[in-house]
Amino acid sequence: MASHSEDALRLYVDSQFCSPYAMSAFVALQEKKLPFELITLDLAAKKNHEKDFTEKSLTQRVPTLLHGDFSLSESSAITEYVDEVFEGPALYPKDAKQRARARQVQAWLRSDLMAIRVERNTQVIFYGKKFAPLSEAALAAAQNLFFVVETLLPVGQENLFGEWSIADTDMALMLHRLVQHHEAVPARLVEYAHHQWQRASVQQWLQQGRPVL
Amino acid sequence: MASHSEDALRLYVDSQFCSPYAMSAFVALQEKKLPFELITLDLAAKKNHEKDFTEKSLTQRVPTLLHGDFSLSESSAITEYVDEVFEGPALYPKDAKQRARARQVQAWLRSDLMAIRVERNTQVIFYGKKFAPLSEAALAAAQNLFFVVETLLPVGQENLFGEWSIADTDMALMLHRLVQHHEAVPARLVEYAHHQWQRASVQQWLQQGRPVL
Ligand SMILES: [Ca+2]
Ligand SMILES: [Ca+2]
Ligand SMILES: [Ca+2]
Ligand SMILES: [Ca+2]
Repeated sequence: MASHSEDALRLYVDSQFCSPYAMSAFVALQEKKLPFELITLDLAAKKNHEKDFTEKSLTQRVPTLLHGDFSLSESSAITEYVDEVFEGPALYPKDAKQRARARQVQAWLRSDLMAIRVERNTQVIFYGKKFAPLSEAALAAAQNLFFVVETLLPVGQENLFGEWSIADTDMALMLHRLVQHHEAVPARLVEYAHHQWQRASVQQWLQQGRPVL
Repeated sequence: MASHSEDALRLYVDSQFCSPYAMSAFVALQEKKLPFELITLDLAAKKNHEKDFTEKSLTQRVPTLLHGDFSLSESSAITEYVDEVFEGPALYPKDAKQRARARQVQAWLRSDLMAIRVERNTQVIFYGKKFAPLSEAALAAAQNLFFVVETLLPVGQENLFGEWSIADTDMALMLHRLVQHHEAVPARLVEYAHHQWQRASVQQWLQQGRPVL
């Protein structure tokens, strides 16, 4: 497919493979077993602000997916599009209420919990970085995060909504910001996060060759 | 419907009617001509952190929609759910690529342009408030915003994607943060924002009785 330009898929991600949103789009394509070209942009060198990428992304953000001539940014829009347009395992729950809940989780993880996202950036996960103790704000955000996962994840289950969905990958990423920094996280949630990390599509992201910082 | 608890719709919004996300969910329900009970929460008095609302919202945020026993937060998840579950005019484009683009717009407006969102909060729109001149960061964000709208909005058209979609209401809200503060906004985008504001569903939100600040 990659040689057939009309339908070719290209995914733009950050060259450190640290964007959790780029990871979500990458996992979606892997789950569907779609061949795609992976293109890295050096965000530190502001390659995302150059004209060629601005025209594709509109918003100068990764990830951006190209499907033939169609370019699409924002990871949750990408995962919805991939699920709608391509065959393969579902990325979202079939049930309308569970699908709505998965969308709630995705939107929430992208617009809240800012203290965790800043104080435990994903270099914790992808580079093993260590940072100063969490602020009061981050500790409060962590409590909110634990409450949400404990409410949504049925006891004894591996996934939030029965079958795996892309919201599981996104949720596990947020938990790993804390788990891999050895913060206090309830054991059931640690187990959930570790289980999600075993997934082949996630492992493929983890195993990308990352530049030395 | 409001008296039939199994299917009753209740929408929790902020008591100042200033949340752009509460507005988006409200407009979705109005467009579908669904009867619903509107419940206001005083966020300044932290009513959203009380146990009863935390159990419903999970994340202590407005808007939260109750549909019978099912409670759902995050405005874009709510507008998707309302569109999927109820009859009536479509809230999203039918075409997969245009629908993807509408989702990109919604996700982007909720996760970027922070300088505009902070320096021109929606009291500009709903209370006529005036603030200090825009920072360099906000001016740069405004240029990004104008580029995106000018790229997506076809010349001579009233809506981003042919027929109206909920992304038009969300985009117009972002533009009105600048338009109603008399910032320099390209004339075509001012016209677009004003046109969107005439919509009956939007007017119903504007006409809510707001408390004195
Ligand atoms: Ca994104
Ligand atoms: Ca399993
Ligand atoms: Ca929201
Ligand atoms: Ca019209």
